[in-house]
Amino acid sequence: MDDRVSAQIAFLSEADKLKSVLRASRLHDGSRFENSAEHTWHVMLYAFVLAEQAGPDVQIDRVLKMLLLHDLVEIDAGDAPIHGQIDAQAIALAETQAADRIFGLLPPDQSAAFRKLWDEFEAATTADAIFAKSIDRVQTPIGNLANGGGTWADYDVSYAQLDARVGVPIRRGAPGLWRWLQPRLAAFFALT
Amino acid sequence: MDDRVSAQIAFLSEADKLKSVLRASRLHDGSRFENSAEHTWHVMLYAFVLAEQAGPDVQIDRVLKMLLLHDLVEIDAGDAPIHGQIDAQAIALAETQAADRIFGLLPPDQSAAFRKLWDEFEAATTADAIFAKSIDRVQTPIGNLANGGGTWADYDVSYAQLDARVGVPIRRGAPGLWRWLQPRLAAFFALT
Repeated sequence: MDDRVSAQIAFLSEADKLKSVLRASRLHDGSRFENSAEHTWHVMLYAFVLAEQAGPDVQIDRVLKMLLLHDLVEIDAGDAPIHGQIDAQAIALAETQAADRIFGLLPPDQSAAFRKLWDEFEAATTADAIFAKSIDRVQTPIGNLANGGGTWADYDVSYAQLDARVGVPIRRGAPGLWRWLQPRLAAFFALT
Repeated sequence: MDDRVSAQIAFLSEADKLKSVLRASRLHDGSRFENSAEHTWHVMLYAFVLAEQAGPDVQIDRVLKMLLLHDLVEIDAGDAPIHGQIDAQAIALAETQAADRIFGLLPPDQSAAFRKLWDEFEAATTADAIFAKSIDRVQTPIGNLANGGGTWADYDVSYAQLDARVGVPIRRGAPGLWRWLQPRLAAFFALT
């Protein structure tokens, strides 16, 4: 029992490092870059508040747990900015190795369960994972609208690029949310 | 519908400010103070990993939602360090006013539901709230053990004070976790 708790605490202590992984996105007030731990909390709050945007097959409790774990691999693999030049295959490999190591700190039963949930999120084929992915994509554009462009300006993003990288997954998982967001994004890009 | 989403997004944008509320506790590596948003993510991960420490009446999905919301009032009321000189009555009033304002940004049905969950956490009388409170108390001591004393050194905390402020709630909500933690705390305090 003592060993089991020790393994769980070792995992939780390792998880503390997610607070030092910086994303390309900024806080709404523009004061600094956001880290992946606080980002995770924020997208979970998004999912809880906007749960009614999910289809009838979605179990919000599973979505919240999926989101709780979804960025832990960034402790080893870092955050890959969605609008940056990325090598998707290299990132996928680094994230898989990170999942092996980080979830591997847990007792074997939990390690397997957490890994399964993370794999489901990454594959984005179940209703829960599709909704979780769409919510994960909604938070940054709303922050960018609040702070005057954020990562769109940094990466010289066009509306067409935004639609492909953000619009597609949001329409897939939360079409009602896209109906709210799309005219606001279009208005912002028309002005810049 | 559009107004409803607008109210929800206004609440979620206000919530971004929790990332700028600093706690007295530091990251495990001691590099900086922790903010209340990343702290919230971390305690949710604690609750999920350590759910088996809860009694049979505890519904972990409700605990996670309670924790997700529990510190939002700090946007207005700030974080009250557990080992600091505090005016408990003044803090309770400030937090209640903060809950009125912040949850009040949501559509009325969600505002009422979220407030009810926060009130339940604060009252700490249900099994779910008692477990949530105990988990909220476990994370900082483990961080302090990792970074050489942290808030215990800053506030000149004795083992007896720690037992009263942290030991009591943890024993109440997660006694098995206290059995793991207590000898480690006692060993640390014996050396300092």
